[in-house]
Amino acid sequence: MAYVAPVDDIMHALKTAAGIEALIADGTVTTDLDTVRAVIEEAGKFGAEVLDPLNWSGDQQGSKLVDGVVQTPQGWKEAYGQFAAGGWGSLPCDEEHGGQGLPQMVSMAASEIWNSANMGFGLCPLLTQGAIDAVEAHGSEFLKHTFLPKMVAGTWTGTMNLTEPHAGSDLGHLRAKAEKQADGSYRVTGTKIFITYGDHEMTENIIHLVLARLPDAPPGTRGISLFLVPKYMVNADGSRGERNDVICAGVEHKLGIHASPTCVMKFGEKGGATGYLVGEENRGLNVMFIMMNAARLAVGVQGVAIAERATQRALEFARERKQGRTASSKGHEMGPIVEHADVRRNLMTMKAMTQAARAICTVTARETDVSRLAKDPVARAAAANKVALLTPVAKAFSTDIGCEVASMGVQIHGGMGFIEETGAAQYYRDARILPIYEGTNGIQAIDLVARKLPLDGGKVVEAMLGEFWKTCEDVRASNRPEFGRMGERLSDCVIALSEATRYLMETLPSNPDAAMAGATPYLRLFGLAAGGVYLARGALASAREGAGPSPYIALARFFAENLTTAAPGLKETVIGGADSTLGLALSA
Amino acid sequence: MAYVAPVDDIMHALKTAAGIEALIADGTVTTDLDTVRAVIEEAGKFGAEVLDPLNWSGDQQGSKLVDGVVQTPQGWKEAYGQFAAGGWGSLPCDEEHGGQGLPQMVSMAASEIWNSANMGFGLCPLLTQGAIDAVEAHGSEFLKHTFLPKMVAGTWTGTMNLTEPHAGSDLGHLRAKAEKQADGSYRVTGTKIFITYGDHEMTENIIHLVLARLPDAPPGTRGISLFLVPKYMVNADGSRGERNDVICAGVEHKLGIHASPTCVMKFGEKGGATGYLVGEENRGLNVMFIMMNAARLAVGVQGVAIAERATQRALEFARERKQGRTASSKGHEMGPIVEHADVRRNLMTMKAMTQAARAICTVTARETDVSRLAKDPVARAAAANKVALLTPVAKAFSTDIGCEVASMGVQIHGGMGFIEETGAAQYYRDARILPIYEGTNGIQAIDLVARKLPLDGGKVVEAMLGEFWKTCEDVRASNRPEFGRMGERLSDCVIALSEATRYLMETLPSNPDAAMAGATPYLRLFGLAAGGVYLARGALASAREGAGPSPYIALARFFAENLTTAAPGLKETVIGGADSTLGLALSA
Repeated sequence: MAYVAPVDDIMHALKTAAGIEALIADGTVTTDLDTVRAVIEEAGKFGAEVLDPLNWSGDQQGSKLVDGVVQTPQGWKEAYGQFAAGGWGSLPCDEEHGGQGLPQMVSMAASEIWNSANMGFGLCPLLTQGAIDAVEAHGSEFLKHTFLPKMVAGTWTGTMNLTEPHAGSDLGHLRAKAEKQADGSYRVTGTKIFITYGDHEMTENIIHLVLARLPDAPPGTRGISLFLVPKYMVNADGSRGERNDVICAGVEHKLGIHASPTCVMKFGEKGGATGYLVGEENRGLNVMFIMMNAARLAVGVQGVAIAERATQRALEFARERKQGRTASSKGHEMGPIVEHADVRRNLMTMKAMTQAARAICTVTARETDVSRLAKDPVARAAAANKVALLTPVAKAFSTDIGCEVASMGVQIHGGMGFIEETGAAQYYRDARILPIYEGTNGIQAIDLVARKLPLDGGKVVEAMLGEFWKTCEDVRASNRPEFGRMGERLSDCVIALSEATRYLMETLPSNPDAAMAGATPYLRLFGLAAGGVYLARGALASAREGAGPSPYIALARFFAENLTTAAPGLKETVIGGADSTLGLALSA
Repeated sequence: MAYVAPVDDIMHALKTAAGIEALIADGTVTTDLDTVRAVIEEAGKFGAEVLDPLNWSGDQQGSKLVDGVVQTPQGWKEAYGQFAAGGWGSLPCDEEHGGQGLPQMVSMAASEIWNSANMGFGLCPLLTQGAIDAVEAHGSEFLKHTFLPKMVAGTWTGTMNLTEPHAGSDLGHLRAKAEKQADGSYRVTGTKIFITYGDHEMTENIIHLVLARLPDAPPGTRGISLFLVPKYMVNADGSRGERNDVICAGVEHKLGIHASPTCVMKFGEKGGATGYLVGEENRGLNVMFIMMNAARLAVGVQGVAIAERATQRALEFARERKQGRTASSKGHEMGPIVEHADVRRNLMTMKAMTQAARAICTVTARETDVSRLAKDPVARAAAANKVALLTPVAKAFSTDIGCEVASMGVQIHGGMGFIEETGAAQYYRDARILPIYEGTNGIQAIDLVARKLPLDGGKVVEAMLGEFWKTCEDVRASNRPEFGRMGERLSDCVIALSEATRYLMETLPSNPDAAMAGATPYLRLFGLAAGGVYLARGALASAREGAGPSPYIALARFFAENLTTAAPGLKETVIGGADSTLGLALSA
């Protein structure tokens, strides 16, 4: 089946969860609603017409290392060329470097579309954007001038080189080295693993951002610097120069995203790759942390994307596949399985979870925009704190539900779902990387509890809980019969989140292990509350418009009555589960 | 890493959840505890030494159709020969036909081991056992005499041919035909799909059990008959005769269980395959239903098996992989990730879910034994009802957690988990078939609510709830500090299950769609309650033995304080979620 971009659902999230209209009205973002819709519609066409047809073939062919060169699947290079030519790689970039200066909210909506249509492809611009962000924010004028225009134009792609075999989550122990040269450049040596699009022949150059240590660097995370290492050197006139000392030494054989080459990269096998410092010496991790929020949000959006795609395919199958008697069956005829109550529960769960995660990611992108663009510095700071708080939720909740929804999608297909040619299994395989990369979801949960709850003495989370509660009050006050028990369930959920938050804030200083033991169920609880609240705001807006029955009211009500019901139990697990989590000896 | 059979955990479930000692003492089963342990230990050795080493290579090679013949992976034929020679295929079979007459409880424990070590292999004896059961229970003396001894000996394997392209879950619409011949045999024609081990060269013959319609059969499920169709005819002297008119026309390209050939079977392409009626004409589905409980339990056991295997691998990895500072770190050293609280939560969840599902399956097997072997017919009937009630829970809950635990196993490995060579991804792929085949988990949930709750006017479920409640009281009365809040949490869970049960019983007659909308969360709730209760019985037994801290007390407490906490929310979803589940138009 063909992918169709969910333009209405995306616009609904932008309008009702993220309040884009108010930001346009007060001039925080300089665009208008028609432009936003037009961009999303055009992106939808590109995704459906160019990227979607390559998704399955790309999975089956995969990217391969042949004679030291990575070969991407058939059609990949041409598609990437069209992507760059269409300006799709430059949506959120500075206009100064050739970008289109669109808000993060809109850029993330487009990113959802690339990744729904073809996640193996979507990773390439995702990583390139990360590299652009780093150079834009911290690069010298030389680096910006030399590299940014072609990266923004999509003529060159970018990579992020963090992980080493022994240092994945704990970057403090990485060993790659960099030594300063007389000309101000650095010689970089070391091996990096899990490097997405570390090599390919789609573009004439690849710009690697590499974490490494200087010889005299302090140990741990305070001794890490960030370097830009191009695959090919760049001549003074901007033309491509000689090959730098960096090679792809292997491509991983993975569960999913087969088309996206996951490379082992070797820097300096012939003496040292030429690199340029980005930011200050020994401050590389700070540069990375600044970009990390955007990258984590982008991965959360991939979770939304794969959930959307899996839902579309399952819904289409459920409308066509006939098994058993249903409401519309005549005589002994079988009816479409979409009419079975249990199949409906799965489909409603898939739709509601997807729209909830989309709303969380859209709000996070909105706050990113406000944190950068608002005129009032107090508003910028407050928004930056919201981004910090919501980012781990956007990343982990959305990618967890990406996996769950993809699994439900397989299930709805029955035996056909297990057959690769059906396509549902690819989403199940592709989705599985999302809770792992860009900081595992366990690390997101720890980040939420240990670093984000204490922000500003707890006032950041307190303010957000207050906003959530306000929505609960609005829902209850609206007193609409079509809302069912949404107000009651959502209130129970936000109360549970508030109680779990209070417990964690109290426990964290005295017994951090007990707090960490509750981090994962707490993050899930946070996601359910945020998702339920944002969907409820959408329901309230739809009700105010009053144009008859709205799918957004139906989804919000379903979410509250069927999914936020897990909230009180999650709270109990957070508050009462630590002792038994930590009790049994598991070490060898 | 090598598989190690969890002999102690299996024995613990047999003793404390299934009460095998009492059944031995009162003569219901004729074996003794030493024999049981010896069988399980020997099975564990066979699984570890013969089947486990072929698991990964079997996945990578897969079974393939070459020139009309299915080729199984390297080493498969030899391993199957050893399996048959060791008598492992005959554990639960009648001694009359060469079987060992061991209880289902023990046979299922061995089945867990085959499927933990190598699920792609384990499916072959699983399906053969189903075919043996059908012939044992309903075959004519001719069929029993001609086919059973070699099937029991493992010389021939068996298959189950139900599904057709348009008739998966709804067998009433199947089209395969059978016409009676003058000699009393039948000519069978038709196409069947998803036939596990439909063809292979591991044994000299394959015995297919095939559902088909007679020319004058009534429409729907009351017009289906069951036929035995051998791949090769059998001469009067028992030797192998000529090839029957049945071929494998294709092998599916699947997400997982690559080594297990999933075949498209064509019967009667040259005029008709010779088949023999099993049971009565038009009563084929009744024969299938009788076997279905055993087959569904066997698939539930596969869920336990894959969860066990995934847990073992993840635990070993977590003990070895070092990232971040932990309790045992010195200075700047990294410690093993098993010491991180969040990783512990995942591992404890994996262990507790696995042991809970194992207990549910073991109790279901126990009741199967009692239903067949008890001297008292009232006890037999009561046990048969318990089997009927527990089977959908054993199948669906265990296979759902099989997938969930396999997914957590990938997660614990971080980036390595997504690399196929690590091995964790294979379990994630293999596990995904389990909620689908042998009746999807949605169908299990519907079966539980629509057919099993009303058994004997609701008295069957009422009696089981009474037993569950008794365990809650025992836990609370024991008042042991090491039980934490197990009694409280378990009681909340059983109360939630009781309330949800009452609601469904009341709703089912008047509004079946509303009841069906709650079927899946209800089954989960039932599984949490049953699992929690059986683990608690294990904890009580360990406490009575009083030999210091017991892992079974720790697991039971963790399960109650961290996982049964979901119960009240599931109840709310069952009771309050139907309207919004059914409200939104999803049809095309």
